[in-house]
Amino acid sequence: MAVQVSVIGSGAEHVARAEEVGRLLAQRGCSVVCGGLGEVMAAAARGAKAAGGTTIGILPGTNRAEANEWIDHVVLTDLGHARNALVAASGDGVIAVGGSHGTLTEIGFARIYGRPVVIVEPGLQVEGVPRAATPRDAVDYVLASVSK
Amino acid sequence: MAVQVSVIGSGAEHVARAEEVGRLLAQRGCSVVCGGLGEVMAAAARGAKAAGGTTIGILPGTNRAEANEWIDHVVLTDLGHARNALVAASGDGVIAVGGSHGTLTEIGFARIYGRPVVIVEPGLQVEGVPRAATPRDAVDYVLASVSK
Amino acid sequence: MAVQVSVIGSGAEHVARAEEVGRLLAQRGCSVVCGGLGEVMAAAARGAKAAGGTTIGILPGTNRAEANEWIDHVVLTDLGHARNALVAASGDGVIAVGGSHGTLTEIGFARIYGRPVVIVEPGLQVEGVPRAATPRDAVDYVLASVSK
Amino acid sequence: MAVQVSVIGSGAEHVARAEEVGRLLAQRGCSVVCGGLGEVMAAAARGAKAAGGTTIGILPGTNRAEANEWIDHVVLTDLGHARNALVAASGDGVIAVGGSHGTLTEIGFARIYGRPVVIVEPGLQVEGVPRAATPRDAVDYVLASVSK
Repeated sequence: MAVQVSVIGSGAEHVARAEEVGRLLAQRGCSVVCGGLGEVMAAAARGAKAAGGTTIGILPGTNRAEANEWIDHVVLTDLGHARNALVAASGDGVIAVGGSHGTLTEIGFARIYGRPVVIVEPGLQVEGVPRAATPRDAVDYVLASVSK
Repeated sequence: MAVQVSVIGSGAEHVARAEEVGRLLAQRGCSVVCGGLGEVMAAAARGAKAAGGTTIGILPGTNRAEANEWIDHVVLTDLGHARNALVAASGDGVIAVGGSHGTLTEIGFARIYGRPVVIVEPGLQVEGVPRAATPRDAVDYVLASVSK
Repeated sequence: MAVQVSVIGSGAEHVARAEEVGRLLAQRGCSVVCGGLGEVMAAAARGAKAAGGTTIGILPGTNRAEANEWIDHVVLTDLGHARNALVAASGDGVIAVGGSHGTLTEIGFARIYGRPVVIVEPGLQVEGVPRAATPRDAVDYVLASVSK
Repeated sequence: MAVQVSVIGSGAEHVARAEEVGRLLAQRGCSVVCGGLGEVMAAAARGAKAAGGTTIGILPGTNRAEANEWIDHVVLTDLGHARNALVAASGDGVIAVGGSHGTLTEIGFARIYGRPVVIVEPGLQVEGVPRAATPRDAVDYVLASVSK
């Protein structure tokens, strides 16, 4: 199995960073896990596909058509926002790009489940969570942590 | 139905505050919702029962015997940490006492679901979440927000 | 804590039986757990309240106003149909009245979690699950099983 | 995205049938979704991989090492048995091979979510659910239903 990295976050102003994160992860041979919907989630998946990668979308609902077009494998949960726990758990590491309340829950779950997590600047302020200046630094950090 | 307030958090050093929050909520006629286990969860329930209140515990597992002895009504979820979403959603308001990663997820869910939430000092630092100097201030804040 | 019994099922033609199950459970000192919505769920709760009992509703969504008016304590899950697992797990025993696909999932979960479960005639046909001719027989069966 | 078919069930005596179901699905270009653990789940995944297919495992826990060795993409849920809802929902169609209480819940969820579902003989008896004499008949039935 390939290393899986979850990309979390939201915010239209963060899609370029998310796309770069997705692209870099794919170039490093990682599968990209995300929430399967729009904005940051779509951008991360689009970046991964542009680099020939593989994407997994964990959706809140039960309708496959809600997945963005860059999702290869879809998991339909019917769990609403509680699916955030699964997005965090299913990554060997987690990278946050932008984000709001939902991202906060995913960062918390990543910590609970012991997944290395990093926040790409500029992003949420969460005590004790490391930050990366660039998408490349974030990918480097997470992959170094996962390989330990 | 009574107003339900969820008390979240953790940390042995916070149990006195949690117990006071539980007691004050019961005196104000609210039911106390919590995660049903120990420390802050047990203290909040104990405080509520000492004041003649009612308590609801939403547990991560499926064994009723894991509930602390001050829980009146138990919901067994088999959801592990994903049950945190339910603890936040099931309160008309949410009060955080101490806490760590799990509390962070619950604060995030409270915001997602539009529940008023307040952090009792000293507690987690979460951008945009109001803080209360004392248990009484926290209870006042949440009940004022709920009644709106 | 009182013994909790979950009443599951659906179908307008079964509400009288469900209401009697709720009433009998309350008379025997049990709290009634249900899915918190209409038809069989509402009837079981109404029966329990008519007999002075206590009711717990475990809802699929996050809006408290969706609970039927006979629910005392509400748990909001945001889990959609996956909340059926919680309805089954949260009963010390489970009684099925009428029902369809959702009830099938709850009967399956009751078996997984080792909860005694009985189907009130007429109801679903599920291999290996005992049946009761009347609400009274069902309540007798479940309470005898729980007390073992 | 490829068509995804969930293979559910349990029982050591059913692994040959499950493996054939997995193999046939892969030959028809479908991804195989399963619960990611042993017996029928492992056999379905093994069959799919033997035919060059792709597999997705939706696990009850949070430890990736619990997935069987034929899983390509793993979703870790922390949901215990409630993850059964996701296994059913994530298939465009569902095939049951053998099985017990958990399979019953998955069949119920498949019906709730409107997924075509078929039981391979010999298997559970569930009112209203079609049966197939062989793995090939089951795959034919589900793919014909999905393509409608």
